[in-house]
Amino acid sequence: MQLLEENYSKNMKTQFEKKELKKKSENLSDWYTDVILKAELADYGPVRGTMVIRPYGYAIWELVHDIIDPWFKKGGVKNAYFPMFIPHSLLKKEASHVEGFSPELALVTIGGGEQLKEPLVVRPTSEAIMYDMYSKWIQSWRDLPVKINQWNNVVRWEKRTYLFLRTLEFLWQEGHTAHTSYEEAQQMTMDALEWYRKIYEEYYAIPVVVGVKSDSERFAGADSTYTVEALMPDGKALQGATSHNLGQNFAKAFDINYQDKEGKSALVWQTSWGLSTRSLGGLFLTHGDDNGLILPPKISPVQVVIVPIFLEDHILDYCQEVEKALTDAGVRVELDIRDGMTAGRKFNDWEVKGVPVRLEIGGKEMEEKVVTSARRDTGEKAKVNLSTLKDDMAKTLEEIQSNLYQKAKKYQQDNTYEVNSYDEFKKIMETSRGFIKAYWCENADCETKIKEETKASTRAKELDQKESQSKCIYCNKEAKYIWYFAQAY
Amino acid sequence: MQLLEENYSKNMKTQFEKKELKKKSENLSDWYTDVILKAELADYGPVRGTMVIRPYGYAIWELVHDIIDPWFKKGGVKNAYFPMFIPHSLLKKEASHVEGFSPELALVTIGGGEQLKEPLVVRPTSEAIMYDMYSKWIQSWRDLPVKINQWNNVVRWEKRTYLFLRTLEFLWQEGHTAHTSYEEAQQMTMDALEWYRKIYEEYYAIPVVVGVKSDSERFAGADSTYTVEALMPDGKALQGATSHNLGQNFAKAFDINYQDKEGKSALVWQTSWGLSTRSLGGLFLTHGDDNGLILPPKISPVQVVIVPIFLEDHILDYCQEVEKALTDAGVRVELDIRDGMTAGRKFNDWEVKGVPVRLEIGGKEMEEKVVTSARRDTGEKAKVNLSTLKDDMAKTLEEIQSNLYQKAKKYQQDNTYEVNSYDEFKKIMETSRGFIKAYWCENADCETKIKEETKASTRAKELDQKESQSKCIYCNKEAKYIWYFAQAY
Repeated sequence: MQLLEENYSKNMKTQFEKKELKKKSENLSDWYTDVILKAELADYGPVRGTMVIRPYGYAIWELVHDIIDPWFKKGGVKNAYFPMFIPHSLLKKEASHVEGFSPELALVTIGGGEQLKEPLVVRPTSEAIMYDMYSKWIQSWRDLPVKINQWNNVVRWEKRTYLFLRTLEFLWQEGHTAHTSYEEAQQMTMDALEWYRKIYEEYYAIPVVVGVKSDSERFAGADSTYTVEALMPDGKALQGATSHNLGQNFAKAFDINYQDKEGKSALVWQTSWGLSTRSLGGLFLTHGDDNGLILPPKISPVQVVIVPIFLEDHILDYCQEVEKALTDAGVRVELDIRDGMTAGRKFNDWEVKGVPVRLEIGGKEMEEKVVTSARRDTGEKAKVNLSTLKDDMAKTLEEIQSNLYQKAKKYQQDNTYEVNSYDEFKKIMETSRGFIKAYWCENADCETKIKEETKASTRAKELDQKESQSKCIYCNKEAKYIWYFAQAY
Repeated sequence: MQLLEENYSKNMKTQFEKKELKKKSENLSDWYTDVILKAELADYGPVRGTMVIRPYGYAIWELVHDIIDPWFKKGGVKNAYFPMFIPHSLLKKEASHVEGFSPELALVTIGGGEQLKEPLVVRPTSEAIMYDMYSKWIQSWRDLPVKINQWNNVVRWEKRTYLFLRTLEFLWQEGHTAHTSYEEAQQMTMDALEWYRKIYEEYYAIPVVVGVKSDSERFAGADSTYTVEALMPDGKALQGATSHNLGQNFAKAFDINYQDKEGKSALVWQTSWGLSTRSLGGLFLTHGDDNGLILPPKISPVQVVIVPIFLEDHILDYCQEVEKALTDAGVRVELDIRDGMTAGRKFNDWEVKGVPVRLEIGGKEMEEKVVTSARRDTGEKAKVNLSTLKDDMAKTLEEIQSNLYQKAKKYQQDNTYEVNSYDEFKKIMETSRGFIKAYWCENADCETKIKEETKASTRAKELDQKESQSKCIYCNKEAKYIWYFAQAY
């Protein structure tokens, strides 16, 4: 993919509009950049690697919030807000944590016209500042568990950046909890992981592999990192979201101790977990075709768009009648009355934007009290009576949601390979790519060599996998578990 | 008030908890800091002037979002997200804008371990970066109006900082619109101002003076700035929220031109408007007493708290019955089953937190199928039958909301003085302070001298005020309008 800055120019968007949409079937990454700009999901910011999330793209992120935030609250998690500026000294408290993030930090060195004594880190994540506060707030077992989440912006100074998938600044939620036992922390880690699986599979319509990360892929400072991994159309894997059992590493580093019921001093057990706007990049890559995006209805800001063939009053009156019927039925509907734009141009525009269903309404439809509906995923057209519209639309939107998931699921299955020799492994990585399931001895050297030779890194080991006696795909030494390998985004 | 950093210490909060709550009647600013910490609305961040908004305080900001964001959307405003980092050169494009913000900027000079060629400004507000994008997006009259809002964090390097009222980083919403005519922009400016008046008066229960700012108090880069001004209990005024008609100043600076219906090139007319977490400081200052906060029900995360006198199963069952009845009625209710804490301690705790209604439930209440309710604002206690609880609570919450507004309104009226001599003016500022209504010639010299001599600055000129022939309170020269003066927060 191209770097963001190569594309930043005042007239870029207009240039793009003059051109045809690039073909997904020909070049995925060109299509991806092109469709994000043309659908007005996002645009390039003036600073290298930054991105503006435009209203259409942000409306999707608002839906993500409105879907997952109630799950958090039901789980006893409360939202809060912590400062963005972290003293560099605080970040250093957890050794492996600072080591992991140091190369990516943005530093504020001047404030109010004066050089600062200590540079301030713009948060790459909030463990350090949150746990510094936790150590102050948590005094007794009565104060536990603490379950706090925040919706905020974070900054990571990435070298190569792509729209949504990797930007210097991105939006996310980060949950941070503290508990009295390892078991409770582990349960929390798993609950968060399940929230992420659910939003990917049931809302994004993207099947995921749910598992644990290898030591080398683990979050800086965690005991264990769990992940949902999605396979993209180019055979590369996207780390969808992660949930970390932090053990007592940060509790020790930040001295988060409390008086337990017996009056003894104890350290808390912690977790952290996050889902970011990066996940939207996976959403856009997964669905869609040469005509543009295809958004799963559950996560689509506009589920049904009504396009009048002519902007005549009597037709518009009928369109509004249809609009009201759907709005009352709880459908997210938009009536496109833009002036100075042909119906055909509007069809094309909403196709690029991936709206699941388009309703075409002309004089004929009005007289017959019907609408002509067109499905974005299959292109199927049908005449629907106004009297049955409500139920028909509900059914159609469900069908589209499940059709998109089934297609993605089939792609994932067709591109997941269980291999028994390293030659097979290499051949797949040289050709189609995809998820490769192979036994690995869990020795970091093999992992490193495989990545060097094939670009494939370990993505996850599925949970509840039975131990077996086998051989490492690389070194042939004893291996107990099958791991998923893939080239990562 | 004390500077934040003077109070930041690891054990400060515990110290505070050991002490009695400071008295509002004795020292407002000490009470303010104390109650914010004890009610766990916020805490001091590790960096001077930064603040952590704790779950209880953040829940109020979430309510503000959930109240006002639908008003924005109904008004055709869409949310988006723009990068936090602004190239210094962009900020410089609008001369008076950069001049106004330069002293308060935080600059990122190092990214990914390297010195940046151009320092990046951490947004103090987003006009510069948003309008740079607008100039790219807006090409034709068909693209207008553009109405975009964002909920985000901004940074202003303040010398003196107070919890909520002035912090280095704060949360807000900033709306930015572009229109084809001055009239349309002016209408938008007024619509936003009305949203702010409404949330202050009908939700915060704080009466406000609605008016226009003087030239010297105007937003850097605006043609005119409109404001809602609230009088605090110490006789100082808080600028509650502002709405700006930007005219074409930024349109010229950022070259935001478009092709109009006649095919001619034209400049857009713009507005910007914002409400921040600073407003919550006004909310906490206005209501409350020596026992702690008093939150207006409409903006209170917990409207009714249920406190069981004993944590016995049969009592808890009854409490849950009561909880369910209220939850089903749409009341935000919390059942306090915290272990190892006496009912009396809980009463005190919820009083400090300002929860409008407390329900006490013991064996007697259970047997009689009643609850004992206590109003936070008046302290009145009453026995309420479970059968009439739903309606009774709805009524009580309405009464509390309007009682708090009436009290604040009376205070505002009692402390607003129409003066005819500068001696009167000075005497009031030396004693009680408050809103002073006086004729002013609108010459900046008089304004400056009055501020130097009395600390009172012009706050606003009420809208739709009839022009009259009078004399300036300071220079005695001709003055057409009455202005509100007060010492500002």
